[in-house]
Order: sequence, then structure tokens, then C-alpha cells
Amino acid sequence: MKPKEAPVPDRPQPHPTGAMVIGTEPALGAGARVHVSDPRSGAVLEPVFRAASDEQIDRACALADRAFPQFRALSAERRARFLERIADLLDERRDALVERAHTETALPLPRLTGEVGRTSGQLRLFASELRAGTWQGARIDPGRTGDNPRADIRQRRIALGPVVVFGASNFPLAFSTAGGDTASALAAGCPVVVKAHPAHLGTAELVARAIADAAAATEMPEGVFSQLVGSGNEIGARLVSDPRIRAVGFTGSRAGGLAIAATAAARPVPIPVYAEMSSVNPVLLLPAALAARGAALGAAFVESLTLGAGQFCTNPGLVFAVDGPGLGAFTAAAADAVAANAGAVMLSDGIASHYADAGTALAARDGVAELARGARPDYAAAAGARLLLVDGARFIADPQLQTEVFGATSLVVRCTDTSELITAVRALEGQLTATVHADTADHPLAATLLPLLEQRAGRILFDGWPTGVQVGHAMVHGGPFPATTDARSTSVGTLAIERFLRPVAYQDVPAALLPAEVCDDNPLGVWRRVDGEVDRDTLSPG
Amino acid sequence: MKPKEAPVPDRPQPHPTGAMVIGTEPALGAGARVHVSDPRSGAVLEPVFRAASDEQIDRACALADRAFPQFRALSAERRARFLERIADLLDERRDALVERAHTETALPLPRLTGEVGRTSGQLRLFASELRAGTWQGARIDPGRTGDNPRADIRQRRIALGPVVVFGASNFPLAFSTAGGDTASALAAGCPVVVKAHPAHLGTAELVARAIADAAAATEMPEGVFSQLVGSGNEIGARLVSDPRIRAVGFTGSRAGGLAIAATAAARPVPIPVYAEMSSVNPVLLLPAALAARGAALGAAFVESLTLGAGQFCTNPGLVFAVDGPGLGAFTAAAADAVAANAGAVMLSDGIASHYADAGTALAARDGVAELARGARPDYAAAAGARLLLVDGARFIADPQLQTEVFGATSLVVRCTDTSELITAVRALEGQLTATVHADTADHPLAATLLPLLEQRAGRILFDGWPTGVQVGHAMVHGGPFPATTDARSTSVGTLAIERFLRPVAYQDVPAALLPAEVCDDNPLGVWRRVDGEVDRDTLSPG
Repeated sequence: MKPKEAPVPDRPQPHPTGAMVIGTEPALGAGARVHVSDPRSGAVLEPVFRAASDEQIDRACALADRAFPQFRALSAERRARFLERIADLLDERRDALVERAHTETALPLPRLTGEVGRTSGQLRLFASELRAGTWQGARIDPGRTGDNPRADIRQRRIALGPVVVFGASNFPLAFSTAGGDTASALAAGCPVVVKAHPAHLGTAELVARAIADAAAATEMPEGVFSQLVGSGNEIGARLVSDPRIRAVGFTGSRAGGLAIAATAAARPVPIPVYAEMSSVNPVLLLPAALAARGAALGAAFVESLTLGAGQFCTNPGLVFAVDGPGLGAFTAAAADAVAANAGAVMLSDGIASHYADAGTALAARDGVAELARGARPDYAAAAGARLLLVDGARFIADPQLQTEVFGATSLVVRCTDTSELITAVRALEGQLTATVHADTADHPLAATLLPLLEQRAGRILFDGWPTGVQVGHAMVHGGPFPATTDARSTSVGTLAIERFLRPVAYQDVPAALLPAEVCDDNPLGVWRRVDGEVDRDTLSPG
Repeated sequence: MKPKEAPVPDRPQPHPTGAMVIGTEPALGAGARVHVSDPRSGAVLEPVFRAASDEQIDRACALADRAFPQFRALSAERRARFLERIADLLDERRDALVERAHTETALPLPRLTGEVGRTSGQLRLFASELRAGTWQGARIDPGRTGDNPRADIRQRRIALGPVVVFGASNFPLAFSTAGGDTASALAAGCPVVVKAHPAHLGTAELVARAIADAAAATEMPEGVFSQLVGSGNEIGARLVSDPRIRAVGFTGSRAGGLAIAATAAARPVPIPVYAEMSSVNPVLLLPAALAARGAALGAAFVESLTLGAGQFCTNPGLVFAVDGPGLGAFTAAAADAVAANAGAVMLSDGIASHYADAGTALAARDGVAELARGARPDYAAAAGARLLLVDGARFIADPQLQTEVFGATSLVVRCTDTSELITAVRALEGQLTATVHADTADHPLAATLLPLLEQRAGRILFDGWPTGVQVGHAMVHGGPFPATTDARSTSVGTLAIERFLRPVAYQDVPAALLPAEVCDDNPLGVWRRVDGEVDRDTLSPG
């Protein structure tokens, strides 16, 4: 990385050096060594990283805290340009990012190439959202004099403060260093301290450098972004406990999310935690659809199940259907596809062994039968797909059957009739997604199920598969506990910015001191609610 | 209360009977006796109430849970009519409400009369907000076929589920049984179980009957509203722990709010808690304003301080100013007004003795001097106003000086210069409000202070007094911890509805199954974001 006054290099710097980023400076960790392994060979990858020392953690938080007032006061346009510059640098350095991520995660090159585009696209979407200004939540209740006087009250949203983001294992780009949490927090005006995911530290370094370069190029205050390396959970707990940190974004395991939420709740000043954790993403095959195309659904389902070695938060881990020939055709086709599946390399050793253990535990539950098992190739972090079956009554009786197996294992729940299927759906915990396959003849049943699914999932999709989370304005990637710790939000899509904002009201504040978004002349041209009415006009003098 | 089929009585039923409301039925508590006392005489008031038994608590939660799917599925228009009917019944029964509330709380009759109007007005405002529909948060990203295909994704907000509301002591109407928490939760589609405040059980009963009558008259599902009586904290903990409860609204003490938040966080499925707790509402007197009208500010300040015996969440408990003749004039006038103050009856014995103890503790802190003390009349729950003084350096060094004294005690912080004043403001905890008195010459200093106040308060007001929370669209009655447990919201104003909603996305859901607010033809005429653009048009076929 270059000092601030030097031009940002045109060419990507392809090789990670083992550095973290603290403010504008690259910094080698002063703590214990942290190794990244190639999930195929198990070999330790160069370079060796080192964990941040307590002093380095403190410095990243102190810089973020210092940057906050200046960063949040920047115009939306300035922050938009920062996000766009990050996007441009990620696109420019795409090949280096993809190469390193492929080495560290074993995810396929086309998928990673797409993920760079998704990551830069997401940053650009937040830039456009910043300019649109709706996120400011501007409201004006104009003051009145005369018989029925009232105060002049105006409202806008402001940033919460520095945010800690925990990179996710399964999306080394789109949900990690410059992923949705970081993009939405920076958009909101919150400095970000990333705790890099230990399974792809090299990718994390390359992305962090791009953010640091973009921050320098667009003259952001020092400390607007830092990235730290840590081994174990200690650094996370320390960051979440730091009084200067005001919110947390996390994507990972249920245990990890719950630990962070507990730490945040125990602070003298508690803070919001947005942890996206655990979801088994039920798929409901309704009778007419199943009768019409059971076999085709079975084949398509296994494609979704095994995509990316099943390492999606939205991987379909549960299938519900009423017993009959349609379900027979589905399970036969799905079993064939699983048996024919070549298996895959998972993201890390630890994830692969956890996958194997969780699958074994699930298969060992009372009443669970194995329908098919795929090949397990010869890699350090290899895994094979697995398809299990259980009856509806057992499923309803045994909450443990809802435990997420992160990877390509799914459980088909065979119900005796639609009434049992409805009871099974009622027994479901909170989910990121719920999928329905339905023909027109199924619509009455679908209409009965829809309210139940709304209460249990953040996204309901019809006649598709849940793996694939489109970035846009209407997406919800969230849902009731344990899918997330806070169902009132989403971690994907423009609504995610609201997680890092809070409303402030200004009563009879002199015009000269009001923020632009609530000034009479609406210089930013934002949509506002004036006395409750939506418009983007200037305010005529009362 | 009459059975469901009977017409709602036209005339108010003026006398409480000691009943709770569970679903459509009045119910006498099956637990321990709970007495309400007259805060003037200390005499026990008729009737005697009894606490809800465990079975009664269970039944209220079960009914709320059962009512929820039906209640949230009602049209916004239906829920609006329910709220309006409650408002009408409160207005009709105003005299009985005011009379009983006056007996129980000793608050003046005109204030209570105004509070009925505020309460019914608030319910009507939420009815109009329901019809406006912006609260639905409708977003549509239309699907595309062709070269760059994408799924069709639509988003709206749905209700969280049954909500427990804890009535507040200091607003027996506007923040209690039918107050802002109840109004916003019902508007959102959440059934409500109120835990009546033990200091005004009779008022609570009369209001609960009005809600039950309105529910019957507008054919709401049984269980949409219940009210329980309890002694001690046990009933609250039991309600907050109940798995059928999905959110909590609370206005009260810091200890009470923290206990509820801890209970909610410890549930197997944690839920949001909106606790409005503790605020000392700093008032900043800037030099030019103080020089111009120190004495007038002092007199006006004491009016705000002593209003309603100081029993406002927004009572001005801290005053900051730079030392000089202006401050001398202010403190002299304020001390005179406090000394001349006749004192007041507080809401209850317990509150009065807590006020006295907290004032004694504050006055005993190192460096605190007493400027004036008002009379303490001869009532059971009497209290006198009190004005204290401390230097800025002491204030900065002693966080205990920020402890709220609920009542008419305030602490003037005398700073040596504006730099010390800024440092003192930086030392402040989270607040509901921050007030600035400033002349034009003070605007540069005000501009420096404004960002600091934004980070520490939910509402910033100029040249007025914080007691008085206008109900509207732009109001924020909330703020950073410890003012509330969740700064991302407000408990007053239409934005409060968002506390009880969460977003759901619909992907490729057949048109026949979509909720009206995200249908192509926009039958409700709501504002939506279509591909990010704000409009309320119908969606033209892509």
C-alpha cells in the first residue's frame, strides 16, 4: 500500500503479504501465527499471518471511533464515490482475487468470478441508494402558529457508529471483507473493523487493500476501515466488547452468533447484533406439482443441494411432501442424482469434519433412513452428498431433526397427508427461506401455508430453489430466530443500510443549523414525509 | 362489560370493579390482593384488585397467540376502525377516566383531560397511518426474462406477534393501557397483553374495558387485547418469558427496563425489547442567549422542571452553561422560583420516597451545592423541588452525577469556558432529549455541539423546554442507551409502528397469492419502491 499522497496503483498487487490493515497502514499482526490451508491438499499456504495484538485491536477501534464523526458527516455523494471506487478496484483486481480465493476455498473459478461481480455490484447498488436518499427517512411536521400552535419537528436517520464485521467462510468476497455488511455499514456512515475469516486470510488481505486504496483515493478519514486477523474467538469477543463499537454484523454458525449476541448483551452499553446463523430452508412440494413432475423436481433439487458443496446459508436441508407416487418419483430421481454425485471439496478441514459429524448425528436419529450417499473424493476437506428420509410424525416429534447440517445433506420429510404437512410446517423454527413448488391446483393449499411460512421465514419463493440470493431493493436475507438474531432486518439488499441507522428529531432547530435532507428547500431532492404525505417537493412557507 | 352480541353501552361505566380483561371477558384476578393508594391521603382506594394467577397469565398469552394470525391478516382499514373505536370510547368516557386517574395519581384535572385527548388523538393518528400504508414498506423488483433474467421479488412488512406492554406510572393514559405502545402494536397487527401499572389500576381497568368494548364492536378476534394485574416483578418476568410473546414495550425505571431486557435476551428465542428508561435531558444555555435573558430563562426553566411534579421522562435534570453574569442571573431567578414553589404530590408513596432518596444521594456527591429548595406540602406522597449546582470539572469526573432523579430536581453544571462545556457534553450518556438555548451569535458554537448531541440524544430542541412530546410523524421519543434499550426506534409518533414489524420477501410468488400491497395493480394505492424508484402507480407489465 502506498502513502496517502501517492497515486493508487493501476495494476493489482496479486500476492498477499500476511498483512492486516489498520487505518491507512498495512500492519503485520504482533500476535500468534495463523495458518491458512489448501482445502484440497491440506498444505499450509504462504504467507503466514499473525493475529492482532491487544494494542492493534485497540488502535483499530480508536481510529474507527475518531473517523466516525467526520465520516458520517460526509455527503452521501462522497460516500457513494468511496463505495464505487472500492467496486472499481475489486473489478480491476478480479483475477488476483479469484485466483487466491480459489486456492484458499476450493470454490470453482466461475463461481468466484461471479462473486467478484456480485460484490462490486452490491457496492455500486449501495452507492446508488445513497444518492437516492430514501434511506435518510426524512420527515417534517412543519410548525404552526395561531390558534392551534405546534412545534416544528423534523426527523432524519444518522449512523450508529463503528461497526465490527465478521467475514463469512462460504462467500470469501460477497459476505466477507467487502461484502454486504461492510457495504451497508459504510453506506450508512459507519466506519468498519473487519475480523477476517481465518479460512481465507489471503483473499481478505487483497480485498482489504482495495478498500484501503479506495479510502485513500477518495480522501476518506483514516480509520474508516481496518481489518484484523485473529485465531480463536478471543479477538471477536474483544472487538464486540469494545465500548467504541456500536453494532455488529456476522454471518456464520449458530454457536458463533449466539456467543457474539451474549457478549453484546452483557456490555455496560448493549449494542445491536445482526447475526445470520442457522437455517435449513424447507422446500414444500405440493401434491399437484409433485404429481406432474416429481422426477424433474428431484433432479433439480439435487443440483441446488450440491451447488458449492452445499455451503450456502440457503441450502435446502429439508423437503416436505405428502406420500404417494409423485414423492416416489422425486426421491428416486433425487437418490439417483445424489448417488451419481462426485462429491466436492469443502471450504476447510474443520467445515468438512463438522459436516461429516453433523450428518452422522442426523442420520442416527430415531426413524431416519438413508436414501442415498454420493462419492467422497480424495481431498483433505472432501465431502459427499447425502439424502435422508423420515416420516412426518417423527419430524414433528423430534426438534433435533431441524439441526442445520452445513453442506450437501438434506432430509426428506414424508407426510401422510396435507394435514400432517401443515403440522410439520407449524413445528418449524425460523428460517431464511421457505420454498413452495405448486401448480394452480395447489394454490388453495399454498394459500393456507403462506401465512405460516411468512411467520417462519424471511423469504418465500415459488417454483425455484433457495440457493441464489438476488441483490436488489426488495430482497430479504434474514428471518426469525435462529435464522438470525434480529428478524427486523436483512443482510442482503438496500434495506440492509437501515440496520446501522437510528432516527433523530430536530425541534425548532434554526434553519441554518438543520441537516440538508430536512431543509425547507430540499436541496438533495430526497423523498420525505411532510405532515405524513410522501413527496419530494420544497416546503412552501407555512 | 357486556357479552359480545350485546351493543356497546353508550354511557361510560364510571366505576372500576377490580377486574382485569382476558380476551373478551372481565376476570377477577385469582392471585394476591393488590391495593392502590390515594397519593394525597395515603388511604387505600376501592376496589381491591387481585393479581393474575399463572393460569390467567397463560390464558391471556394463549388467546393473544390464537388471535394473532387472524388479527394480522385483517385489512389495515379494519384495524384502523378498531383504533378509532377505542379513541371514540375513551373520549366518551373521558370524565370517568379523568376523575379516577386524578384520584389515583393526583395529577391535575386539566392535565388529565388533555391526556385523554392525546391518547385518543394518538390512536386516530395510527388509524390514519394504517390507511396511508407507507408503514407496509412495499418494494418490488420486477422479474425479467431475456438476456439478463432475474427473479421477481417483492417485499412488505408483517407483524411480529403478540406484544407485552408495561403501563407507565407517569402517564396513566397516554403511556399506559391504551398508550403509544399499545396503539402502535395494535396498528402493526400485534395482539397486546398489558401489564397494568400498579399505581393506577382503576384507570387501567376503565381503559381496558373501552378497548375490550371497541374490540367487540368492531368484531376483532378474541384475545387481541388483554390486561393483567400483578404485584411485584414476577408477572412481568413470566410474560416476557412466555414463548408466545414476540416483543415488549416498556416505559419505566432503568432497573425495570434492564431486568426485562435481560429476561428477553435469556429466552431460548430472544425477542426485541423497547424499554424507555432513564434520561436527564441536558439543557445547554449558550453564552449570547444567556447574556440576553438569563433571568427569563431561569424562570421558564423552573416551570418546565416543576411541571407535573417533574414526573416526565423528558424532565430537564441537567443544565450546562459557562460561568458569568448571565449564569448568575439564571441561577438567581431559578433559585427564586424553586424557593417559591409550593411543591406537589407525586404519583405514589414509593415514587416520592425514591425521589427524596435520589435527591439526597445526588446532593451528597462531592462538589455539589444546593442552590434552592422548594416547599414540601403535607401529603402522603409529597415532594419539593430542588436545585443543585456543581462545577464542570466535577461533573466530567463523576459519572454518578448523571443519575436520573425522577422528579423536580435539577443540577446546574457551571463550566469555566465553552471548551469545558463541550467536554462535559462529550461525557454525557444517552438521552431522550437535548435542549439548546442559542441566539444567532451562538450558532457557531451550536453547530459544533449539534453533532455531539445527535450522537447522544433522540431529539434535539432549540429555545424551548423538553417536557412536552408532540405526537406526529417526525417525533422521536427514544435515544441511545440508557435512555432506551433500542435507539433504532421511537415510542411516540407514527414511526413507532415499525418496532413491531419485520420485512418478508416474496420471490416469484403467483399473482393470485401475493399480498395486496405488492400486487401489480396496487389496489391499496400505497407508496412503493419499484426497482428503487418511489411511486404509487400500478405496475405496467414488463
